[in-house]
Amino acid sequence: MILIGERVNAGFKDVKNAIVNKDGDVIKKWARIQADAKATYIDVNLGTASNKPEDLCWMIEMVQEEVDTPISIDNNKSLMLKEALPACKKPPLVNSTTATEEKMNELFPLVAEHNASIIGLVMDESGSPANADKRVENAAKLFEKAVEFGLSPEQLFIDPIIMPLKFMQEQSLEILKATSQFKLFSDPPCHIVCGLSNVSNGAKYKRLINRTFLTMLITSGLDAAILDVTDKEMIDTILTAELIMNKTIYADSYLEAFRM
Amino acid sequence: MILIGERVNAGFKDVKNAIVNKDGDVIKKWARIQADAKATYIDVNLGTASNKPEDLCWMIEMVQEEVDTPISIDNNKSLMLKEALPACKKPPLVNSTTATEEKMNELFPLVAEHNASIIGLVMDESGSPANADKRVENAAKLFEKAVEFGLSPEQLFIDPIIMPLKFMQEQSLEILKATSQFKLFSDPPCHIVCGLSNVSNGAKYKRLINRTFLTMLITSGLDAAILDVTDKEMIDTILTAELIMNKTIYADSYLEAFRM
Repeated sequence: MILIGERVNAGFKDVKNAIVNKDGDVIKKWARIQADAKATYIDVNLGTASNKPEDLCWMIEMVQEEVDTPISIDNNKSLMLKEALPACKKPPLVNSTTATEEKMNELFPLVAEHNASIIGLVMDESGSPANADKRVENAAKLFEKAVEFGLSPEQLFIDPIIMPLKFMQEQSLEILKATSQFKLFSDPPCHIVCGLSNVSNGAKYKRLINRTFLTMLITSGLDAAILDVTDKEMIDTILTAELIMNKTIYADSYLEAFRM
Repeated sequence: MILIGERVNAGFKDVKNAIVNKDGDVIKKWARIQADAKATYIDVNLGTASNKPEDLCWMIEMVQEEVDTPISIDNNKSLMLKEALPACKKPPLVNSTTATEEKMNELFPLVAEHNASIIGLVMDESGSPANADKRVENAAKLFEKAVEFGLSPEQLFIDPIIMPLKFMQEQSLEILKATSQFKLFSDPPCHIVCGLSNVSNGAKYKRLINRTFLTMLITSGLDAAILDVTDKEMIDTILTAELIMNKTIYADSYLEAFRM
């Protein structure tokens, strides 16, 4: 499972203050905690703290001073990415493009040039998808365009767009249906990713809903997620689901082995 | 979700002693606990405590003196079932037949006569299935024969035969693949059931493995399980998976609502 740590995000107050005050220790602390928790990528998001490329690059540098974990650049503006991509020591993940022609034509060449990967959201000019078919249609657009720009399937992370169970309950089943089809575009397939926490937006039992839905998504082929990598119950569930999917080899102490 | 309570089983020492000593209070205690935990059926199993039909009927009577919950008769011998079926006040579930001609021809007419339901294991004369295709082939045999004897699809509970993750790790993915096809025989479909605990046989993290695998099976269409209905984390997970599958309506307090 590709685990994308969500915590270096200015949506969290401590990170926002750290960006404003150029307090690198806060960024490094969360980089370390998430790297120790086995994050595959560390997502870096400026939020509303700044719109300057140099601030994004500063965040990336702070993370890279502390850990070797690759960066997920949580920004969709080519002006920002043109500065941020060369600042990454390892091939980063760009988070994200939509399936609109304009955005794909803008971002895919940049991604290809830097040997990066990119998350593609299955929404287009008409907005968010309302059912499984529209998700698959937009995923196909992303896949075709990525290939056209010379990306391999593994450089594309398709995101089915998670919606809140509380407000759009019927969407979760549509998401599962769509997800099970994304792997069929190619062999080896593209990755499938989600921003998990949106499913429990406004709900009372957030963590239970998050980990149950993630288990169901893994059953449908998902192999990456943006999440709280320090949520032990969540990670235990992921490790168990991957055992069942026969992606890792069973050992009685498989949970401990992951954390060694 | 159809919850089949596993606890009135002579595999548990207190129940075995209760059968030998005709101590109805132990049977009634477990009937009450499982009914309060919202069991849909109460499974009744003589194990090695006895092979007398009157003992099986006594167990059924003890359960029925305490609760109204329908019985799952955990026995595959027609001599036993001929006595036990008429002892049931509500249409029971027979647990179980295999997909062998002999067993199906023996049990399906009895089930039809008593308007009962029956669990069909996807194993035949050649033994346990080694892959998804063999499971689907045997499920088709069960389905065709059930229809031939006048059972409706809803009276058949197909069991994909769960195997231990620890010893047969590759089987779990085969089970998921097969399960996702069982619903395709008819509309309305047959039920899909499993004896869940076998997946964690010999494993260290039994409860985690049980509830993660059950979530994955629900994603693949399973709608019934024989399990410990008093396992709160398991039931919480099931309730959440059913919300996500859009089978129940979201409310913030959906866990509390189930237990009211």
